[in-house]
Amino acid sequence: MMLISGFHAVESILFQRPELIMKLFLSRSEDKRGLKITNLAKASQLNFEILDSKKIDEIAGHSKHQGFLVEINNLGFLSEKDVNPRLKNLTTSRVLILDSIQDPRNLGACLRSALAFEFDAVIINKDGSSPINEYVFKTSVGAILNLNIFYVTNLVRSINSLKEIGFWVLGLDGIGEGSIISEKFSSKTAVVLGSEGSGIRRLVKENCDHLIKIPISKKVESLNISVAAGIIMYELKKQHIN
Amino acid sequence: MMLISGFHAVESILFQRPELIMKLFLSRSEDKRGLKITNLAKASQLNFEILDSKKIDEIAGHSKHQGFLVEINNLGFLSEKDVNPRLKNLTTSRVLILDSIQDPRNLGACLRSALAFEFDAVIINKDGSSPINEYVFKTSVGAILNLNIFYVTNLVRSINSLKEIGFWVLGLDGIGEGSIISEKFSSKTAVVLGSEGSGIRRLVKENCDHLIKIPISKKVESLNISVAAGIIMYELKKQHIN
Repeated sequence: MMLISGFHAVESILFQRPELIMKLFLSRSEDKRGLKITNLAKASQLNFEILDSKKIDEIAGHSKHQGFLVEINNLGFLSEKDVNPRLKNLTTSRVLILDSIQDPRNLGACLRSALAFEFDAVIINKDGSSPINEYVFKTSVGAILNLNIFYVTNLVRSINSLKEIGFWVLGLDGIGEGSIISEKFSSKTAVVLGSEGSGIRRLVKENCDHLIKIPISKKVESLNISVAAGIIMYELKKQHIN
Repeated sequence: MMLISGFHAVESILFQRPELIMKLFLSRSEDKRGLKITNLAKASQLNFEILDSKKIDEIAGHSKHQGFLVEINNLGFLSEKDVNPRLKNLTTSRVLILDSIQDPRNLGACLRSALAFEFDAVIINKDGSSPINEYVFKTSVGAILNLNIFYVTNLVRSINSLKEIGFWVLGLDGIGEGSIISEKFSSKTAVVLGSEGSGIRRLVKENCDHLIKIPISKKVESLNISVAAGIIMYELKKQHIN
């Protein structure tokens, strides 16, 4: 169960995935925004409840909801066993693997870029990562609703499933011997990124086919993780269309 | 005057730009971190004051200082009139222009990437942007200390100064007619980015030589601004070294 609030967030769920909504609360139905939300709800035959703004504060646990709140039951994440059937028939494919990204804002920005560069899947380890909460939803600007997200317990097993169906698995790592600038990407490529503090975990790294880096000035230790993710996804998409 | 706290931040200023420091406060000088900071201070002949942690809370206005706080007087930003003398003799040059970036975290991440991709200058409009505060400093991971930052009142005037000394000025805009994928960058290129909400302001946009975009899926309205900035800076750096 997840609570998501705010006009734009609630509007995007109502518009794109109304079937996810269990409950819809709003503080008003008569101004422009209220009408927009109630019309979308009616179009999907969804019930809504008009509550005092203070009451919505209580349910949301904060007051930044702008008078709009939904409770959604399940974002419908995929699991490890779905990797093979979902991805095996693709001839060109891009997959993002996020190893233990703990900052919700970076996680959200990575998801936003993954949708922007038309990635077929994002694989996230359930245990070491930031929970996929309202904050991630908002920084992803709703991208979560349109992505195939695999929420798994064991990244190594998922990486091996990908290899079995013909994926080449690259790890992005500051000490990678390859460089993104000269890399020729395979038509089915998965890219692994680790957390900003500690990078890709050892065992995950050992299971990558190849480690590459983004060359940067020696004056900077690393890029922000969502910036690094954006750059490699951009480069991969560019090669796949060229 | 700016206050910057935290072990890593204070250490990086002491190490890289000790001349900026007006006052240095710490809560302890005997553990490993305390010794590191006091030794750096002594090496630069800087005085320091040992204060109770609660007293540092008061000066910092928060309690996340880890016992280390510096007051710096002036980060030494450049002004509009420095654009011409500082940049005119470069034959290959990259400049980032940030128009009214209000989110300190995005601003910090853009500065971090600008140093990573060896940009010669970053031009920021003083009035419409987030102040360059402790939060920007930290998300830039200290990049601010090593960049030439021009803090200006009039971006259009700065753009015209750049054009006079041979720069080609590109604006990154979702409706740009050009695409970053096919763009051949001039050896002296400035790139303008606007805020996430409203993009580059009209008058600034009209003064760009050319508008380009990063092609993305129709399912996403835009990229996070620091991700977009990272991608264009990466691409520009890549072309300049090839």
